[in-house]
Amino acid sequence: MFDGILENVRAQKPITHNITNHVTANDCANITLACGAKPIMADSPLESAEITANCHALCLSLGTPNADKAEAMLKSGKKANELGHPVVFDPVGVGASEFRRNFAAKLAENVHFTVVRGNISEIKTLATGIPRAGVDVSDEDICTDNTDDIIAFAKDFARKSGCVIAVSGKTDIVTDGKTAFCIYNGDETMQYVTGAGCMLTSLIGAFLAANPDDAMGATAAAVCAMGLSGEIAAQRMGKADGSASYRDYIIDAIFNMTAEQLLEGANYEIK
Amino acid sequence: MFDGILENVRAQKPITHNITNHVTANDCANITLACGAKPIMADSPLESAEITANCHALCLSLGTPNADKAEAMLKSGKKANELGHPVVFDPVGVGASEFRRNFAAKLAENVHFTVVRGNISEIKTLATGIPRAGVDVSDEDICTDNTDDIIAFAKDFARKSGCVIAVSGKTDIVTDGKTAFCIYNGDETMQYVTGAGCMLTSLIGAFLAANPDDAMGATAAAVCAMGLSGEIAAQRMGKADGSASYRDYIIDAIFNMTAEQLLEGANYEIK
Amino acid sequence: MFDGILENVRAQKPITHNITNHVTANDCANITLACGAKPIMADSPLESAEITANCHALCLSLGTPNADKAEAMLKSGKKANELGHPVVFDPVGVGASEFRRNFAAKLAENVHFTVVRGNISEIKTLATGIPRAGVDVSDEDICTDNTDDIIAFAKDFARKSGCVIAVSGKTDIVTDGKTAFCIYNGDETMQYVTGAGCMLTSLIGAFLAANPDDAMGATAAAVCAMGLSGEIAAQRMGKADGSASYRDYIIDAIFNMTAEQLLEGANYEIK
Repeated sequence: MFDGILENVRAQKPITHNITNHVTANDCANITLACGAKPIMADSPLESAEITANCHALCLSLGTPNADKAEAMLKSGKKANELGHPVVFDPVGVGASEFRRNFAAKLAENVHFTVVRGNISEIKTLATGIPRAGVDVSDEDICTDNTDDIIAFAKDFARKSGCVIAVSGKTDIVTDGKTAFCIYNGDETMQYVTGAGCMLTSLIGAFLAANPDDAMGATAAAVCAMGLSGEIAAQRMGKADGSASYRDYIIDAIFNMTAEQLLEGANYEIK
Repeated sequence: MFDGILENVRAQKPITHNITNHVTANDCANITLACGAKPIMADSPLESAEITANCHALCLSLGTPNADKAEAMLKSGKKANELGHPVVFDPVGVGASEFRRNFAAKLAENVHFTVVRGNISEIKTLATGIPRAGVDVSDEDICTDNTDDIIAFAKDFARKSGCVIAVSGKTDIVTDGKTAFCIYNGDETMQYVTGAGCMLTSLIGAFLAANPDDAMGATAAAVCAMGLSGEIAAQRMGKADGSASYRDYIIDAIFNMTAEQLLEGANYEIK
Repeated sequence: MFDGILENVRAQKPITHNITNHVTANDCANITLACGAKPIMADSPLESAEITANCHALCLSLGTPNADKAEAMLKSGKKANELGHPVVFDPVGVGASEFRRNFAAKLAENVHFTVVRGNISEIKTLATGIPRAGVDVSDEDICTDNTDDIIAFAKDFARKSGCVIAVSGKTDIVTDGKTAFCIYNGDETMQYVTGAGCMLTSLIGAFLAANPDDAMGATAAAVCAMGLSGEIAAQRMGKADGSASYRDYIIDAIFNMTAEQLLEGANYEIK
């Protein structure tokens, strides 16, 4: 299913423009390099559109937003649309403030996203405009047996928005509105690493940049790769290792991941 | 003495709002996650007060300050006071510029801090308004045998300000103006890790968030935990390891720290 | 050749002011500490000149530029010149946008740089005003056998600008316009670590701060030390290690590097 997707990243070494938060920018840049792509992290409206024009994909994150970065995201998003570049949007904590909700709505009105990735509370807030939670999943959205509900919600949102929707959770869902990948890769230690979601968004951007004609496959492959790297990292943990070593092991695993390893390790079904 | 303090963090998983510098924001978020709390790092005045309102504690750092972040800190600090949330203030390099000194004074006029944590030069600059040094301890304040003077100064400042004062140094002092913890945990390699102080400030915020009725105990427990993690990290150092591995080992040690380990390893006396 | 240069850093513990990008600021601060110097990372125009005045060297990076940081760089650069402090300029991705090109030109008009460090595309863009590439070396500039051309170009630019020019590449070149160090240290894994160039710029700043009368030697020694740390890190890589562990190993190697190790490991010829 993912034949050639990782190989394309390694062969093409696409350049991805990331407008992301300053908390995880270093990790996002490093995981982009680890998978074989090249990141540019420019976030000023004075140059963002020009930078976007010279890249192969755009990743937008709502983390640590401010007025300048919001303007940069709008300009870059429009430029990417104009040039037909893939755009990934990560609505980090969109329920956490009115500023985030309003800006996310404005961005969605002005920019078409190829992929939207977030946890279920973020995706629901984005889809409905009604805040669900801060940066984490709200309690009412945590329910281990509601995968079918999430799939139905995500498919509906994908159809209405025309985006591939990627929902991160115990089971990750990736859907284009028709079919859905239910992805079982991952490890619970990932929740103790800041920016694991942000890193995945950057990875999706890199995979999309090299596989622009298969947004659904590229996104699902990136989600599997990230989850698989979490599993590999977990196996590597020594007794004294904790969440900081684990973060490095995730990036290391992406760096060392072969196409065969991804094909064998990807653990999903299609619904 | 610290019974239940770490357990409360792990059980309650409080959310802490950190307005910190971009240099160490990633480490601050990761150590917050490692101890069992959840960080939000928002630093724009367009949303900071709303974010604060939905968190359990607020951590303010004077590192890499700018006009926007200063406004965000004022708004968040006032909101936290209004709602009775604990506030930790870290006067990073307050002696380094007139902007920092003036803003710190303005912040102190408008916001009541539960805890102030810094090195002795920062604490003295804050207390007196007279600059002592840049981001490090001034030579005149480095004196291995002046612990009694530091305790007296800190107790006096704690009484006048109504804050718990935490002074980081060879011996760490935590005082509410009445008694003082003299804490001997720590390792000299910690000075080679950027943001060791910032991480401690975030850790104090997490401990306070889950133990709001025991500011003195929560602060002292966090200081002991940080120092103890520095000791554990030092024991783990291999021949080729240096300051970068050491940074990860500190966060790993916080991640793996048990309540028993903290109780046994905490090395202090009360004066 | 490099006798005493690293020892001076360790003995003097100079303070370096870094106005750098938020992506690599943490790594830049940590490598500065690892070599024995002390970093301050302040980037607001509200305080930058005052901070510069209290430091021993200034490092300016064009990464993630914005209007505020540009103003801070101008103010700090002028102050450093006024006080005779060494200034290192890293024209990160100067070809990537008109904003970067124009600001770099303005900065060069107003500030004399002691050292300029970049890849050959960045150096050529800076020297000619004609953009060559984004943040990476342009294809036309990648040519394994053009070292002599690069040396000639760098020497010419060094003479015209009065700066020491450091060109990072497969072979690193450091020249004052008269002679050139051709430095063969380094490892290809370094290209998978974001900010390896930024870290080198901070390292140069630290070495210059402690050796202000030997800009050429201090720069060459820092380039050798960085490349050597990349080699040491490569030797340390285990089977599961990847680019994230490698980043830590680089900083660890700088932390552990002795003057003898640098003298023995430095691999260069003078042309």
